[in-house]
Amino acid sequence: MRDVFNDQLDQMIGDLASICDDVRTAVHDATVALLTGDAAVAERVISADEAIDAARERVEETAFSLLLLQQPVARDLRTIVSALRMVSELERMGDLSVHVAKVARLRVPHVAVPDDVRPTIERMAEVAETMVSEVRRVIARRDVAAAIALGRADEEMDQLRRRSFTQLLSEDWPHGVEAAVDLALLGRYYERIADHAVSIAHRVVFVVTGEDPRSVEV
Amino acid sequence: MRDVFNDQLDQMIGDLASICDDVRTAVHDATVALLTGDAAVAERVISADEAIDAARERVEETAFSLLLLQQPVARDLRTIVSALRMVSELERMGDLSVHVAKVARLRVPHVAVPDDVRPTIERMAEVAETMVSEVRRVIARRDVAAAIALGRADEEMDQLRRRSFTQLLSEDWPHGVEAAVDLALLGRYYERIADHAVSIAHRVVFVVTGEDPRSVEV
Repeated sequence: MRDVFNDQLDQMIGDLASICDDVRTAVHDATVALLTGDAAVAERVISADEAIDAARERVEETAFSLLLLQQPVARDLRTIVSALRMVSELERMGDLSVHVAKVARLRVPHVAVPDDVRPTIERMAEVAETMVSEVRRVIARRDVAAAIALGRADEEMDQLRRRSFTQLLSEDWPHGVEAAVDLALLGRYYERIADHAVSIAHRVVFVVTGEDPRSVEV
Repeated sequence: MRDVFNDQLDQMIGDLASICDDVRTAVHDATVALLTGDAAVAERVISADEAIDAARERVEETAFSLLLLQQPVARDLRTIVSALRMVSELERMGDLSVHVAKVARLRVPHVAVPDDVRPTIERMAEVAETMVSEVRRVIARRDVAAAIALGRADEEMDQLRRRSFTQLLSEDWPHGVEAAVDLALLGRYYERIADHAVSIAHRVVFVVTGEDPRSVEV
């Protein structure tokens, strides 16, 4: 009976890692759509989100059946409850990528991001994508050191967000209200993706160590 | 042993309802700060958030101890796991109120919301506050009908968000980039508060009926 339990637990962790891959693709493709104004890529991100939602449901079902049938304790219990919360955060990261794709789609055939802000947005997207990859490693290997390192990437995201605000609120912002509003919201979406990545990493620390690192959570 | 369990479960539900009261106060006060430019009220919202975070930790501790010590099944299990997720959403609603308060604080001694947009923001805040009150009732009374009704209030929030975008992106928007960016983000914060309210209501439906209403979730 314990073997079946551990197999199901491993399967659930594998499903979470696989959702990370889908979320990373979503972040990447949404950014491509955003920076190129490619409506087809934007549509792909939007329709691919259903698969992430379905994967979330599978993880939830597995978690509930493990809780109900196996009555786990200690670390196994923490793993299952944390998985329920992590999968909910991963789904949100997918939703946030859809929001980015929708900004891109709304501005087609134009590109929502003016050339002089492009480096900031590109870097935000890179940081977000790297954080999703790291989250995958943290989940798959229960890597506490990588989980703690994720917090540092989040600091860069905060700096980028501040930089984008400085740009769009400067006296000589030449691109008008619409572009400024797009950028403010896009910055918010990438920042939230990063926040969720940090939060998931902290949950893994909790699973592995039993310690809640929320005191360092932002 | 069952009585102690049920007492603790009732206590946990009571704690959730009490966090709803704190979140409602946060939404209300943040809006007052926003519409009056009152820095002291904004600070109060920001510092009161610690109490919401602490209350979240207490609910989490109770939930974990119930899961570990009582090995609940069926509806009790759903209640505890759902409580863990609801308390996390309530904490986010508190954080979003803090974001509103911080926009208010940033613009002191001015008011972030221009007069002609004020009715839209006032109504958004009213809808959000009412939804938090309804969430309290849904949680405290396990009221499935009220939970389903919450979805309709959320539709009004979506309409208000669209209206605010129409205003701030119109050709003759007179208030400049900064006010437009503030409003776009404020709209996002109130909308997310409403989204979380709907999500919590759906979790209560799940607890009471065992049915997941996510097919109707936005």
